[in-house]
Amino acid sequence: MSVNYPGGVKPIGRPIKKTHVKLDSAANRGMGFEHDINLTNEYYLEKGLALVYKRPTPINVVKVDYSHGAKITQAYFECQSTTDYNGVYKGHYVDFEAKSTRSKTSFPLNNIAPQQVEHLLNVKKHGGIAFFLINCYAINETYLLDSDYVCAFYQEKPRKSIPLEEIKKNGHLVKEGYRPRYDYLPLIEEFLLK
Amino acid sequence: MSVNYPGGVKPIGRPIKKTHVKLDSAANRGMGFEHDINLTNEYYLEKGLALVYKRPTPINVVKVDYSHGAKITQAYFECQSTTDYNGVYKGHYVDFEAKSTRSKTSFPLNNIAPQQVEHLLNVKKHGGIAFFLINCYAINETYLLDSDYVCAFYQEKPRKSIPLEEIKKNGHLVKEGYRPRYDYLPLIEEFLLK
Repeated sequence: MSVNYPGGVKPIGRPIKKTHVKLDSAANRGMGFEHDINLTNEYYLEKGLALVYKRPTPINVVKVDYSHGAKITQAYFECQSTTDYNGVYKGHYVDFEAKSTRSKTSFPLNNIAPQQVEHLLNVKKHGGIAFFLINCYAINETYLLDSDYVCAFYQEKPRKSIPLEEIKKNGHLVKEGYRPRYDYLPLIEEFLLK
Repeated sequence: MSVNYPGGVKPIGRPIKKTHVKLDSAANRGMGFEHDINLTNEYYLEKGLALVYKRPTPINVVKVDYSHGAKITQAYFECQSTTDYNGVYKGHYVDFEAKSTRSKTSFPLNNIAPQQVEHLLNVKKHGGIAFFLINCYAINETYLLDSDYVCAFYQEKPRKSIPLEEIKKNGHLVKEGYRPRYDYLPLIEEFLLK
């Protein structure tokens, strides 16, 4: 099977099986959201507004064939121990995770790895700006949520998800458009910079 | 050929050929410096002083075999379009490149890619802290150099390297020890924070 990842966009979760239409469309939607965030960051870079990059997917390289240049012949995807995006806005360190959910009622917290929560708590501890961008596909809205809010939910064991109503109440609606696709910078400026 | 990269440390430059002893030791030394910087960052994290990570090596995945989990069977190393390290120190965005040279007289600028210079100029433009850590193996000293200084040298076409004397004069000597191995944070505090 041949897979290309344009713009470094990786598939989320399990491999796409063409027979499972629902799983397929979910994976594509996740990729679509990441792709749009990448375009947003390119726009910010072009306009000189911020410098935000997607971190490369960590890959554990096991075998390399050097007979014709360096060709990796055996390697495995590793879990991202941090988040997908980080960068600089007006000198401030910015770090965030972008997630998409198709649920109509809540954002499932099993989308987030424990080491990501730990990482975001560390970012906050060191004075950085940390948040989640949560794309609620069912209602066609995207919210910026402070990482502290999401991490608190995560650390309360009984909760397995954040209800959409809570996201609406405690998050900040991201303005969508053509360019930038998801304009999250004004929300950092208004709500996260102290 | 089987290759393991402990701690995500990648070999620098060409593949290591066991018959070329000098190249072999040069590559090992480069890896050793990166490894020591990684240990330094782990120390800073443990002590709650800063949060700095090595970016994963970007890899272009061409083929994945999903018959037993996801095994990458064809992939290629890509050039790092940014730098090796970034993170947060007291809320400030920090970005740097760590390089080792065995030259006794100068630091060759062909070690630095044009897109890395562009990236570091962008970091500065957005108010971030950007620098180089240059390990001068021949004299057993490591210097922190402001990225603006190195980028200026890079952009003056006739210069192919920075003389060691210039590095000593314009850089800041990094204190070496057991833990942290290369204590670069006090130099950020003293010389790069405005």
